[in-house]
Amino acid sequence: MDEIATPGAVVDLDRLEANLARMQSYANGHGLRLRPHTKTHKAKWLAEAQAGLGAAGVTVATPVEARRMAGASPELLVAYPALGARADAIAAVAGETPTLVALDSAEAVRQLAAAVERAGTGPVGVLVELDVGMRRCGVADADAAVRVARACGDAVVYRGVMFYPGHIRDPVEEQDRALEALRVQLDGVIATLGEAGLEPAIVSGGSTPTAFRSHEVPVQTEIRPGTYAFNDRTTAAIGACARDDCAYTILATVVSTAVPGQAVVDAGSKALSSDPLRGGEAGGFGELLDRPEVTVARLSEEHGILDLSGTDWRPRVGDRVRIIPNHVCVSVNLQMEVHGVRGDRLERSWEPEARGWG
Amino acid sequence: MDEIATPGAVVDLDRLEANLARMQSYANGHGLRLRPHTKTHKAKWLAEAQAGLGAAGVTVATPVEARRMAGASPELLVAYPALGARADAIAAVAGETPTLVALDSAEAVRQLAAAVERAGTGPVGVLVELDVGMRRCGVADADAAVRVARACGDAVVYRGVMFYPGHIRDPVEEQDRALEALRVQLDGVIATLGEAGLEPAIVSGGSTPTAFRSHEVPVQTEIRPGTYAFNDRTTAAIGACARDDCAYTILATVVSTAVPGQAVVDAGSKALSSDPLRGGEAGGFGELLDRPEVTVARLSEEHGILDLSGTDWRPRVGDRVRIIPNHVCVSVNLQMEVHGVRGDRLERSWEPEARGWG
Repeated sequence: MDEIATPGAVVDLDRLEANLARMQSYANGHGLRLRPHTKTHKAKWLAEAQAGLGAAGVTVATPVEARRMAGASPELLVAYPALGARADAIAAVAGETPTLVALDSAEAVRQLAAAVERAGTGPVGVLVELDVGMRRCGVADADAAVRVARACGDAVVYRGVMFYPGHIRDPVEEQDRALEALRVQLDGVIATLGEAGLEPAIVSGGSTPTAFRSHEVPVQTEIRPGTYAFNDRTTAAIGACARDDCAYTILATVVSTAVPGQAVVDAGSKALSSDPLRGGEAGGFGELLDRPEVTVARLSEEHGILDLSGTDWRPRVGDRVRIIPNHVCVSVNLQMEVHGVRGDRLERSWEPEARGWG
Repeated sequence: MDEIATPGAVVDLDRLEANLARMQSYANGHGLRLRPHTKTHKAKWLAEAQAGLGAAGVTVATPVEARRMAGASPELLVAYPALGARADAIAAVAGETPTLVALDSAEAVRQLAAAVERAGTGPVGVLVELDVGMRRCGVADADAAVRVARACGDAVVYRGVMFYPGHIRDPVEEQDRALEALRVQLDGVIATLGEAGLEPAIVSGGSTPTAFRSHEVPVQTEIRPGTYAFNDRTTAAIGACARDDCAYTILATVVSTAVPGQAVVDAGSKALSSDPLRGGEAGGFGELLDRPEVTVARLSEEHGILDLSGTDWRPRVGDRVRIIPNHVCVSVNLQMEVHGVRGDRLERSWEPEARGWG
């Protein structure tokens, strides 16, 4: 590890492998297909590893993710409406690998169908996205779902529904209520679709925060967690993983201790991102792997300010530390290279080649 | 512009050129050297353009910025302590181009000197960083500045002092007080350094928020604004530029209008960053170039949620919009490519080649 320049992204491969195996085992045990979202790791070799463990397919959001992940698994899901240039990019990928697209409007169906016809590739499957409370994308009710499904045809083929329960991340008792509401809503939508002759073959749900409760919403046929591969400070804070399941850290060097009560490391918002901690009371932008009581209290682009008020530890200029970021997906997207270690030994390095766009 | 895929970074070249000329003209008019910070644009051709207009040098923070910007201007300033692998990277660059490094500890001097001796390159100049209220890096008092300056020698040569007044971004009356405190502090430090035979040849200050008031702190010999090239929503919100000086936008496509009262665009935290607005009351993560009343109220990684509550405008799926981000420097760092336009015509595209590390 001494040879890794800072700031540097470091993945504990033992933890990564345990995280991948745990989720696949859970899905297998409950008869759920696992379609991991690759936006977290952005690396084709990891998508292939997930498929090798039994993932039925992988999920992507962007054209570059679709291109890089095509062929890594039996079936690609683009969990994002393909408008404009995205439609052409996805149509091209569909010529290489079986592809589904999630969307929520007849206009998106129309543009995707036109792109598939222009490309002359095979049909693309469509999942109609439902809003189940996240208030992001997704049709609001069953009638709207029927309308979008009916807009599909031969170039884009209706296959089912998708939802993203990203709003369900609360304490267990509130999760209970939210999951019950989800069950009721899904039963109603699926009944209406069935009456219209549009019974969904696929019901795709589930993200990391509630992934291990997916069997409580048995109408789901598959789940799409992404963060579980690496986990992060937020995932641990909401109880969706143990702190020791956090596989990804930013290795950083102490560059200044001149201002009393703090130390400055060379990991700022361009390494950790400025995403807030979503869960728990601790605040800040990350915490030390070996000293949970030390948080990154403030960030500049290239500076992270470690708050030393809760520790007797007094770092020296040149010391190196490992930081668990609040949100791993956006941190990975900032990296040119990610380093995999066993203990302190560097085993392999890779480029997160699906980052950005293009 | 129709050919640019979304999300895409778009720079109005007329505004960019006016921004560059305005700052150089201000610096010339007050006998200040301009050493623009290139962390904002990360593009060598822009550093060369700044040098062509009269910049005495450019500023960088990271090793990759140093390598990419070496040779773009007469003298490079690495405004960041060079510890560990950074020291070797900077020593190598110093063999190509005259280089200064800012730091705040004797340990940083020691590591940099060792790297310069290992590399066998010429000497590196050192500016001692002073904390003038930002509480990030920087020695706290004049005696500490003397100690760090005295740690320099032949391989690293003491040249002066640097400070970053990033905390001075308030309304004018509070700026007045902060600038007076800055004058008093600098006069004291420089007097003490002079008594120790360490009169600074360079006094490097100034960032975009107070750049045009730099002449009010006449002891400065140079300023280092970066954001002024593009400007952003925060710069406009604190009154440091006009809204029409914002040259950089993220072009985005409306991908969903399914949830009432909002529209979803394909620019999320991986295009805009989740940096908050620092100034003003508006909140959110960006605002539309053509409709300031429409803000990006929420972000996911690939989704921006436009709040339509303050507008009669009703976008349709497939419409394209341009968004002024809160903080341009972190947004540029997320781009694979940046597109320069005159009006609606694409004139040139470039890679921000100094992003990331390595």
